[in-house]
Amino acid sequence: VNELDFIAALRGLPLHPGAGGLDDDCALIEFGGETLVLTHDMIVEGVHYVPGDDPFNVAWRLIATNLSDLAAKGAEPIGVLVGASLIGRMPRFVEGLRAVLEEYRVPLLGGDTVSGDKGASFGCTAIGRGTCRPVPRRSGALPGDRIVLAGTIGAACLGYQAVENGVDAPDVVPAFLRPVPLLAEGRLLAPHAHAMMDVSDGLLLDAARMARASGVTLALDSAALAPAIARSDALSPLDWQEAASWGDDYALLAALPPEVDCSALPGRVIGSVMSAGDAPLLVDGEAPEGTLGYEHR
Amino acid sequence: VNELDFIAALRGLPLHPGAGGLDDDCALIEFGGETLVLTHDMIVEGVHYVPGDDPFNVAWRLIATNLSDLAAKGAEPIGVLVGASLIGRMPRFVEGLRAVLEEYRVPLLGGDTVSGDKGASFGCTAIGRGTCRPVPRRSGALPGDRIVLAGTIGAACLGYQAVENGVDAPDVVPAFLRPVPLLAEGRLLAPHAHAMMDVSDGLLLDAARMARASGVTLALDSAALAPAIARSDALSPLDWQEAASWGDDYALLAALPPEVDCSALPGRVIGSVMSAGDAPLLVDGEAPEGTLGYEHR
Repeated sequence: VNELDFIAALRGLPLHPGAGGLDDDCALIEFGGETLVLTHDMIVEGVHYVPGDDPFNVAWRLIATNLSDLAAKGAEPIGVLVGASLIGRMPRFVEGLRAVLEEYRVPLLGGDTVSGDKGASFGCTAIGRGTCRPVPRRSGALPGDRIVLAGTIGAACLGYQAVENGVDAPDVVPAFLRPVPLLAEGRLLAPHAHAMMDVSDGLLLDAARMARASGVTLALDSAALAPAIARSDALSPLDWQEAASWGDDYALLAALPPEVDCSALPGRVIGSVMSAGDAPLLVDGEAPEGTLGYEHR
Repeated sequence: VNELDFIAALRGLPLHPGAGGLDDDCALIEFGGETLVLTHDMIVEGVHYVPGDDPFNVAWRLIATNLSDLAAKGAEPIGVLVGASLIGRMPRFVEGLRAVLEEYRVPLLGGDTVSGDKGASFGCTAIGRGTCRPVPRRSGALPGDRIVLAGTIGAACLGYQAVENGVDAPDVVPAFLRPVPLLAEGRLLAPHAHAMMDVSDGLLLDAARMARASGVTLALDSAALAPAIARSDALSPLDWQEAASWGDDYALLAALPPEVDCSALPGRVIGSVMSAGDAPLLVDGEAPEGTLGYEHR
């Protein structure tokens, strides 16, 4: 059983209406006249990181990636629940938790700890308050919308290259080790967005997902994308194919109706939405070839 | 680092006011004029179950134990988020999820899946709506309160004995394999309770925890407890020490003010609350000796 089969099986279970058919990173619950936004992500040793990685960064990534899901809904974080299996070097994990919670002013709500002796695993549930109605899903893009990317892509790719090759590249390594959830950008974009999601598995792959969820085609322009590609003084520049097919960047991808003045909002216009064509995604008018991003097995 | 050290370190992090100092199984958030109740528990292979166990029961236990935490707050479940690392036999896990979600009419809200190759681990975040104000914590017991136990203790112990020894004991094995969250009982007790918690690690241990959290002493009466001890036609009866120091029963323990008519509520009176004495817990007037329950390492 692979992940996609498993998720397909989960879709056959009794789902909450706010689960969005399990097609979105967040669940939305109407509660007491407000919208509650919930997301849960796991980090597992050997899958998302290697045993030698600094637990500080594991904790940071655990919280930051969940906050990025809230950012993609324009939600204001309320708090996080954390589950952790204890394997050693936990003081360093707690230091990372403190750093990321203080950085984004998000309090700990609770959680669970387990003394395991196998590979470590961690879970985070982040809870937020929707700041607009409706809260944008990844499925609402409409033909004629403009596609906006807030944040950069490729920094995690360059950061990974630097770490793997022992290159000193302080301009990109932090983005790889300690991703930044674009909470402020998300709150500014959300009230205007027909659709929004974070770019966690690669821009091309995530753009194709938004297109499929919305029943449209996304047409991107590589020249418009170029300024959004991260650079490092210490490493060779990435071409758009590399930058747009690598994950872990946590930019935000939004579909905005044409009447919105994008110049007053974060990000840059990198394309537009068309009626569904043969391919969910076009770049410079052609369906991109090869791997689009990080596919879950 | 053991679990208690780790939790102590977590208490030093920025906590949400609703985290209750991490002394409670649930976080409480005032949201939109209502109280949101949240809990997160993990289940890890090799800690909470052995690799050969039926994944159906692992899924059931994952959800049921989280719902039991909601039951202890008198909360009405809204839904669950589930994190799962995939190891094999996932169709059986999904069957168990379906069974427990349908049994308690709780919808799936979302979650995360990971294709791991080490020990399996699972997380569940259950979200509920408080049905009374204030929602009872484990810390509110007052001298003069009566202690009520809803549900039975010892069934999981007998069920474990039966499974380990290959004894056919259909009167207790289901309680061990597929615990029952006492949601209806919790909702009836919560509006009257000064304090409430579920008994997951053993009655004596959990009663001592309620006493410490409340700054009181709980005085239990073994004769009053006797009718709450589960029996099996196929196994020797348990004495109160055995039944009250074994976990996994998921009974509810509540402290009710003396003016409440307990005869109209679920459960039975098994003791009373006194001002804090030398020991947090007395049974028949003496501090119980030996292991009180399942202590986390």
